[in-house]
Amino acid sequence: MKDETLQTLVPLTHAEEPVVRQAIEAKGWREKLDDDDRAVLALRNFIFDICNQNGGGHGGSAIGMAAIGVALYKHTMRFNPSDPEWFDRDRFVLSNGHAAMFLYALNHLVGYDAWTMDEIRGYGSPKADGYTTICHAHPEIEDPAIEVSTGPLGQGIANAVGLAIASKNMAARFNRPGFDVVRSRVYCMTGDGCLMEGVALEAISLAGNLGLDNLVLIYDNNQVTCDGPLDWINVEDVNAKMRACGWHVLEVADGSYDVQALVSALQHAKALTGKPVFVNVGTVIGLGASCAGTAKAHHGVFDAESVALSKRLAGQDPLTTHWIPPASLEYFRERKQHGQKLQSEWQAQLDRYQSAHPDLAKEFQRRRAGDNGQEWRKALETMDSAAFRHKATREVNGDVMETLWKTHPALFGGGADLVNSNKVPYQETDVFHPSVGFSGRFVRYGIREHAMAAVSNGVAAYSPGTFLPFTATFFMFYLYAAPGVRMGALSHLPVIHCATHDSFAEGQNGPTHQPVELDSLYRAMPNLTYMRPCDGEEVVGAWLLALSKTTGPSLLSLGRDPVGPVPNTDRFKVAKGAYVVADVENPRLTLASCGTNLHYAVAAAESLSAAGIATRVVSAPSLEHFDAQDGAYRESVFPLDGTPVVSVEEYVATTWARYATASIGMTGYGYSASNASNYARFRLDEKGIEARVREYLKQLNGGDARRAGWRAI
Amino acid sequence: MKDETLQTLVPLTHAEEPVVRQAIEAKGWREKLDDDDRAVLALRNFIFDICNQNGGGHGGSAIGMAAIGVALYKHTMRFNPSDPEWFDRDRFVLSNGHAAMFLYALNHLVGYDAWTMDEIRGYGSPKADGYTTICHAHPEIEDPAIEVSTGPLGQGIANAVGLAIASKNMAARFNRPGFDVVRSRVYCMTGDGCLMEGVALEAISLAGNLGLDNLVLIYDNNQVTCDGPLDWINVEDVNAKMRACGWHVLEVADGSYDVQALVSALQHAKALTGKPVFVNVGTVIGLGASCAGTAKAHHGVFDAESVALSKRLAGQDPLTTHWIPPASLEYFRERKQHGQKLQSEWQAQLDRYQSAHPDLAKEFQRRRAGDNGQEWRKALETMDSAAFRHKATREVNGDVMETLWKTHPALFGGGADLVNSNKVPYQETDVFHPSVGFSGRFVRYGIREHAMAAVSNGVAAYSPGTFLPFTATFFMFYLYAAPGVRMGALSHLPVIHCATHDSFAEGQNGPTHQPVELDSLYRAMPNLTYMRPCDGEEVVGAWLLALSKTTGPSLLSLGRDPVGPVPNTDRFKVAKGAYVVADVENPRLTLASCGTNLHYAVAAAESLSAAGIATRVVSAPSLEHFDAQDGAYRESVFPLDGTPVVSVEEYVATTWARYATASIGMTGYGYSASNASNYARFRLDEKGIEARVREYLKQLNGGDARRAGWRAI
Repeated sequence: MKDETLQTLVPLTHAEEPVVRQAIEAKGWREKLDDDDRAVLALRNFIFDICNQNGGGHGGSAIGMAAIGVALYKHTMRFNPSDPEWFDRDRFVLSNGHAAMFLYALNHLVGYDAWTMDEIRGYGSPKADGYTTICHAHPEIEDPAIEVSTGPLGQGIANAVGLAIASKNMAARFNRPGFDVVRSRVYCMTGDGCLMEGVALEAISLAGNLGLDNLVLIYDNNQVTCDGPLDWINVEDVNAKMRACGWHVLEVADGSYDVQALVSALQHAKALTGKPVFVNVGTVIGLGASCAGTAKAHHGVFDAESVALSKRLAGQDPLTTHWIPPASLEYFRERKQHGQKLQSEWQAQLDRYQSAHPDLAKEFQRRRAGDNGQEWRKALETMDSAAFRHKATREVNGDVMETLWKTHPALFGGGADLVNSNKVPYQETDVFHPSVGFSGRFVRYGIREHAMAAVSNGVAAYSPGTFLPFTATFFMFYLYAAPGVRMGALSHLPVIHCATHDSFAEGQNGPTHQPVELDSLYRAMPNLTYMRPCDGEEVVGAWLLALSKTTGPSLLSLGRDPVGPVPNTDRFKVAKGAYVVADVENPRLTLASCGTNLHYAVAAAESLSAAGIATRVVSAPSLEHFDAQDGAYRESVFPLDGTPVVSVEEYVATTWARYATASIGMTGYGYSASNASNYARFRLDEKGIEARVREYLKQLNGGDARRAGWRAI
Repeated sequence: MKDETLQTLVPLTHAEEPVVRQAIEAKGWREKLDDDDRAVLALRNFIFDICNQNGGGHGGSAIGMAAIGVALYKHTMRFNPSDPEWFDRDRFVLSNGHAAMFLYALNHLVGYDAWTMDEIRGYGSPKADGYTTICHAHPEIEDPAIEVSTGPLGQGIANAVGLAIASKNMAARFNRPGFDVVRSRVYCMTGDGCLMEGVALEAISLAGNLGLDNLVLIYDNNQVTCDGPLDWINVEDVNAKMRACGWHVLEVADGSYDVQALVSALQHAKALTGKPVFVNVGTVIGLGASCAGTAKAHHGVFDAESVALSKRLAGQDPLTTHWIPPASLEYFRERKQHGQKLQSEWQAQLDRYQSAHPDLAKEFQRRRAGDNGQEWRKALETMDSAAFRHKATREVNGDVMETLWKTHPALFGGGADLVNSNKVPYQETDVFHPSVGFSGRFVRYGIREHAMAAVSNGVAAYSPGTFLPFTATFFMFYLYAAPGVRMGALSHLPVIHCATHDSFAEGQNGPTHQPVELDSLYRAMPNLTYMRPCDGEEVVGAWLLALSKTTGPSLLSLGRDPVGPVPNTDRFKVAKGAYVVADVENPRLTLASCGTNLHYAVAAAESLSAAGIATRVVSAPSLEHFDAQDGAYRESVFPLDGTPVVSVEEYVATTWARYATASIGMTGYGYSASNASNYARFRLDEKGIEARVREYLKQLNGGDARRAGWRAI
């Protein structure tokens, strides 16, 4: 159809012809349209309709990227619309998630069942109570053919790096001469925004360092951001920067319409090895609309006149919306057969692989199914607590990990250049790095906390249960990583975060390294299980819970140094969230604490009890799990009989007010000094606790503690 | 002294000589020592002693950077040890703050009064209760001659960018032909770690974009990090990357000892214009110690043999610690006279300036003194609330800023590419950008939230009160910025953060953009004043408080859309933190809320009251200010008489449990849908609130609500 002229395609009236011709010229569109061109136009027109159907959205980028979409979905990526979960599919990440309709439109066009025209019509419309759609404003991982949830800029690039790491690792472990059972590549779209975000810059640097040549990052270079032209805020030489970060760089100048140039670049990218590939694609935001090339095209509706013109160009009726020219629909839908064929070929190869490498095939099958056995559970349940005595929780955490390396096949991860301090054990030979190959399970993330968390989400998102990523750094630096931890929780991705050096007892680095408020964030973060074990026994319990959770991340808050003993701790009671570790008859007071502060509460309770104030002690490693217990249990731990319940922790007390009648905590930042002196300084040691409790009891004067209202003491 | 040979300086025994010679050769040390060399040795030996005096610290980098320290403090920077607050001093930022003793040792050597040898001896020692020192593990801004607190890697670079912006702006506003009353330049040290952190990469990009040629970033390129050799985690071409980001790049290969090469580079940097300057300095971590060049040198003590050898090289007695050779001490202390001279010259120029430009001089004086008048206060106190009616709080926030641009001379800041959505008003002509000059007050930060916060801290740190920086983006993206906001709070730096689009009522972007837990972080963060006004009247009140606070940042949480009316709001009552907006006789229930949720609580209360459940309503824009009120007032707002107090907010309720007997809030993430449908979906509208309250009252069955314990309802 290459020789069809515009005239034969678009029945123009005499009056319209010069206008359309002018528009064609202005937009650099070629005189003769081929199938690719028509597909690009069809996609653009579809996106115009999606944006205009309910009064807006972020359509400009999606329109500018239409040719990229065609190059990827029609000519480059391996996927099967009939099986969005096909293990060896190429992964696509839309890091500029606000351009969501780009993805939705393509998912519809290539024929993913879930992405019906009805769903597409839902985009931008959920105003009515109870209305739902999978066509959210940003892509959400829960929906079919969406690899990761994106939206907060930059993180999608890090997710893509994680997906590429996962694929690389699976390939290294399971491919054998003649058998490429894992070939999945990762394609990630980015706009100008993502490339300014620190998390993306960290991830880009990491990907270059790891030489992830199965990763292609496609830059929708439209030189426009929300507020105005890009050069207001960024004038970098982005190609030089990417090269400096260890990437191959390709460029496509006319990326708004030149599909075959894009296809050539993407094919060439497959041949490039040793480094990830950056494809810098010049595009025009909102191409075809009157606001094209300006910040106005970033979001909002498009003018009817431009949309009509664009539809005429494609031979469409300007008054009909959500209509795909049959030839173009067929052009896209052919991918269904193609995808079936790809998957069948892969399956056939897998059958041969099974004969040639039966053991490996079995292991591969288990990994794909996310079947990680129960050996890890037995190992943890039977770990001898005598070995933990006098060890810091970060050290026991290391012991647990040592055990898990041997018993949990999916464990995969690393730390942000503090693994010696984090006490994360690993074998030099088990490192994931080009110098030793990609079959290793330990990733050196470098000093890139935010990327570490977001990359881990990508690893977890590769396929459910195939990987159990973990991360490690100081607790304080999980504030850098917080946006990534949050996206993991929101996306239901199981990642285990090992946060050592919690509280001001972190070895006198000082207030910059001492969290006092970070627990409040993580305790409030939905679907993030925050646990603060007080000793080795509870560390094991926390890991049992973290490993059992398949629907979201956990964060283990761990202490740097050994602390005093806490009686009656129990790995199996961690699941209760809070439980009594020291009981007394006719208690007049309950002290509750966790982590490195609990042993002081135990000591204070003993002293108070000895002085006639019968005091019981509660260990509360996980308030989330505690909230899930029934009312009777909760009342048995934190009585509602009017006796005081005092929480003790080296943090600003927020969540504690749910349970306690008074809280002993921090009101300001920490101090650069030894642990012991800080507990004394902030009156959180045995002596401080006892004195503050006594003062509180004096204030209460025998009155009902709950009636008196919560107070910080 | 250039011709003095090593032999004459160091009285070596016959046996020792070959050992020392070998050491010299191995370290590339030159045969003949000059004054600079001796100063470098003296500094290194001093740092050895500081590390070894109390068993550790992060000495390796400090030792490797000794020659850089000499080049900067002796030969390059303009400062006056007798007046650490001299306005026109060059600013020095140690972004790799763990190398703190580098700064402390130099502060002592050049003669800052506060940095006595006794204080230096305090480094690493505060183990005893009550012991204090200014020699913290990381530099803290409260101490003399420390420009910013550093430690969390990467942020120091962003602080330096902020200081450079501040200096550039002051120079543009106040320098006139023949009068360079502002010449201060900014020198920032970075290690490998900072250069991997996203916040630094954002700030570097921003500095390049802004062409900050008064900024010099010196890279202590020792190729070693905590965990091992740098190439384990980073193999970038850092020079190419910096050039791509718009920086000049200079290199000094032998930066561990070649002081004059460093001086040449730093002098050359002064001559380079239009771009910031990156000086890549090759160094050896822990030079002179047996662990030199390895990760072991990163922290911990140094071996006695190496230290002894190093002292011999300097002609020092190996057994004497904390002793500076008199010639070297004199060499450094000469800076006191030099600094006095610099400041006197500046003062003399200022006197002439006063005659030549009396009005400008007066303004300059006020800005230096941080005297920003009271016009802004009058303007805000008298703003007509009629104009606010039916406006979203983000819009009123824009109105307030419009007023402040005219009345508050120190206001300076901008947003992260969402200022149109944030409704931050600014004049195109008032932009801080090389294309229009540097006298503008509006900074386009680009899509770099973390850097925006950390850069703002640098602007605020320039000189107390000279700038009042503000930032703006969506509330959710303040999670990206959180580590910067925290450092501002910790460092007592007044910055005003305008966080719009709070809660799930942010315009259907979906859960990725909808904070549900972020309030918990900011409400717990010490010295960060978090305020969530419910209407325009309270927005004005929040600004009055934010502008009155000179010892830390404030964060204003603002709504995207107009909401229903709340009666009796009062800008002056915001300072109370919480106050009654709707009272009733014999109340049976109190509803408390804030922000965009409050009007629903008001409506629900009216409905409940009409149905015979007399309900009062509390507006609680700032729980921090409320906590500062006396007990009687607090009880007058949240009664302790056993009647229920129910909080209502579109967030996970944590802090609310301090005051309420029950909370209506979120337990999961938001949803991509319209505001109205989300309030209905999550039962946080009038109907949902009333139904949940009724169910709660049924559960209580007339019982004492406080005795029943807090619950989520």
